[in-house]
Amino acid sequence: MPGREENLLLSDLDSGGVLVLTMNRPEAYNALSVDLIHALTGAVRAAMENRDVRVIVLRGAGRGFSAGHDLAEVLSFESDDEHRALLESCAAMMQLLDSCPKPVIAAIHGSAFAAGCQLVATVDLAFAEETARFSTPGVNIGLFCSTPMVALSRAVSSKRSLRMLLTGAPISAAEAAAIGLINEAVPSERLDETVMSVAREIASKSSYVVQLGKAAFKAQKGMELADAYSYCNEVVVENLKARDASEGISAFLEKRDPEWSDS
Amino acid sequence: MPGREENLLLSDLDSGGVLVLTMNRPEAYNALSVDLIHALTGAVRAAMENRDVRVIVLRGAGRGFSAGHDLAEVLSFESDDEHRALLESCAAMMQLLDSCPKPVIAAIHGSAFAAGCQLVATVDLAFAEETARFSTPGVNIGLFCSTPMVALSRAVSSKRSLRMLLTGAPISAAEAAAIGLINEAVPSERLDETVMSVAREIASKSSYVVQLGKAAFKAQKGMELADAYSYCNEVVVENLKARDASEGISAFLEKRDPEWSDS
Amino acid sequence: MPGREENLLLSDLDSGGVLVLTMNRPEAYNALSVDLIHALTGAVRAAMENRDVRVIVLRGAGRGFSAGHDLAEVLSFESDDEHRALLESCAAMMQLLDSCPKPVIAAIHGSAFAAGCQLVATVDLAFAEETARFSTPGVNIGLFCSTPMVALSRAVSSKRSLRMLLTGAPISAAEAAAIGLINEAVPSERLDETVMSVAREIASKSSYVVQLGKAAFKAQKGMELADAYSYCNEVVVENLKARDASEGISAFLEKRDPEWSDS
Repeated sequence: MPGREENLLLSDLDSGGVLVLTMNRPEAYNALSVDLIHALTGAVRAAMENRDVRVIVLRGAGRGFSAGHDLAEVLSFESDDEHRALLESCAAMMQLLDSCPKPVIAAIHGSAFAAGCQLVATVDLAFAEETARFSTPGVNIGLFCSTPMVALSRAVSSKRSLRMLLTGAPISAAEAAAIGLINEAVPSERLDETVMSVAREIASKSSYVVQLGKAAFKAQKGMELADAYSYCNEVVVENLKARDASEGISAFLEKRDPEWSDS
Repeated sequence: MPGREENLLLSDLDSGGVLVLTMNRPEAYNALSVDLIHALTGAVRAAMENRDVRVIVLRGAGRGFSAGHDLAEVLSFESDDEHRALLESCAAMMQLLDSCPKPVIAAIHGSAFAAGCQLVATVDLAFAEETARFSTPGVNIGLFCSTPMVALSRAVSSKRSLRMLLTGAPISAAEAAAIGLINEAVPSERLDETVMSVAREIASKSSYVVQLGKAAFKAQKGMELADAYSYCNEVVVENLKARDASEGISAFLEKRDPEWSDS
Repeated sequence: MPGREENLLLSDLDSGGVLVLTMNRPEAYNALSVDLIHALTGAVRAAMENRDVRVIVLRGAGRGFSAGHDLAEVLSFESDDEHRALLESCAAMMQLLDSCPKPVIAAIHGSAFAAGCQLVATVDLAFAEETARFSTPGVNIGLFCSTPMVALSRAVSSKRSLRMLLTGAPISAAEAAAIGLINEAVPSERLDETVMSVAREIASKSSYVVQLGKAAFKAQKGMELADAYSYCNEVVVENLKARDASEGISAFLEKRDPEWSDS
């Protein structure tokens, strides 16, 4: 049902290669229903294959970013298998955002709760308005935020993650920036321009090089130091053979702007 | 010698399920003697089995939190095996605090040195008075803080850990909060109320859910991302079958306070 | 060509055991040419074997710390093997700085770019003047900073690393301190005294104990918690048998300064 998915998720690709995906269930605070998860997964997969897309921005429509899972939907499921299917599709989406070689930037206004907070922890870069709030409140309703925890505990130190998870209390955007859950908190009226400025900055680079880099970042992250260096040495050897490396280095030495071929 | 252990370690369980353990060797700045380590280990084990205990608070009697190992005792040992036994019982206690599914919160006044600092790094949450100080000063006496280092280097980044370990110099509570060794520094007169407020907040949740959550946090922490998601998806499926999940979600939808059965 | 290497890298060992290594290619912003990498590698190896060296300080001559790889040299290479040889010698040097049991402290003025920023991320402690800047700008010239990324992503959290890597934009010394890339930013006129004060502080300890400690820090870092404790318990048992432990503890109890034998 492509029409329906378009409704659930607005998609806007500008001429500079910045794809803005807007979760569009404002009446449900952009709760991550099965359908929205599928729409978002499909959109990210399509973006990965679309050469015109250089950077992905993720935001929410209406009052805030996302409330997390759709509680009404969760309650409507009657079997473990239905719950498991929801959780697996959500975890697969999170891992897709993580492994997608094109950078993903979140723009957060209002609140990012539970799986909404997990999205923030998962993406590559995140910017929020100063009044935004972040929480993993599952403990308050008897359902620990165990899957948001996977992303949160990999983005933020243990004591800070545990405070959020065990108390369920929200933190401010300033605190989220201080602990590294987001990159920066900015005044509300500057959120869009800040995010688009960073997105356009990254979109102005060689998409080949950016994707090579993000993929290598993820690949080397968990390796032993010596293995990471062996691996990344070969990434650089490969990168050096690319047209955009020759072009970029020449342009730098000739003090002119490079013209990327994205190869 | 339970009487003696009671002296070494004061224990106070309030009606809300907050167990306050007070290291009580004020004349020795609560140095972690073999007896105190055994008393603390025993108290944590007992707390794990006592359904009335929902959260554990750890503090020190007298002038400060803890000076670390008891140097006089260390000197009195004459064989490697005696040293090894002390170290192994201390490391076992630290790992018990780490793996204990009931949250452990440290309240630090005065100083937390060496193994005292290790306690702070080990527990789930930590709050300190603004004048508190933290250090791993072993290098000053020719005995590197190699075991405190295990906890410190897992709580704090390498450059910050190494500065403490290599110089032996203390850091302030403000710096400890900034680098994530503690959650927050508060005025001295507000330390107790801050810690008890967080402890009571956590104790007001379903103890079943809190324990499921902390245990899952520790279990998934070192896993690969995909494994962590597979594991935590099953934790959520399990959690959803619990009475407290039904109760919590219903209470939330009915806008009333939940009544936990801790199951 | 020892004479040439001496020129490339100035070396000054003071009577207190602080070895200051100054990268000395000011005309090339101390770019890490093959020759400079070899000189630095040789100097660190020699320092490891020289009992008079207790701490290593690394700085740059001229306008700043280091611009990273020498682009002109990189362009002069014609085969993958030449590139690979450069990268492998650079990675080996970084790993030598990491594993060298003697502490390495960077003093950064001006800029630390690319592999220069990698040096900063690699060493044990780092101090910078407030006007210093740090970046991984490879993406701007079509050559992603994939090898600097190995050190950066192990020193700094993912969102902060990725912002630097994907945008190529520099960060200030204050931000570098806030995210843990350096320990502290100080006014320019206080950089040397700050670094030398920390270096002398560490040099005043038992070199045996400091080296035991740094080596153990690196060894235990990636281990499971239980393995790290088993390992470090034995390090302490070993440390307790050293003359400097007896001397240090005795001096402490006798309230006098210890006299280290570095054994």
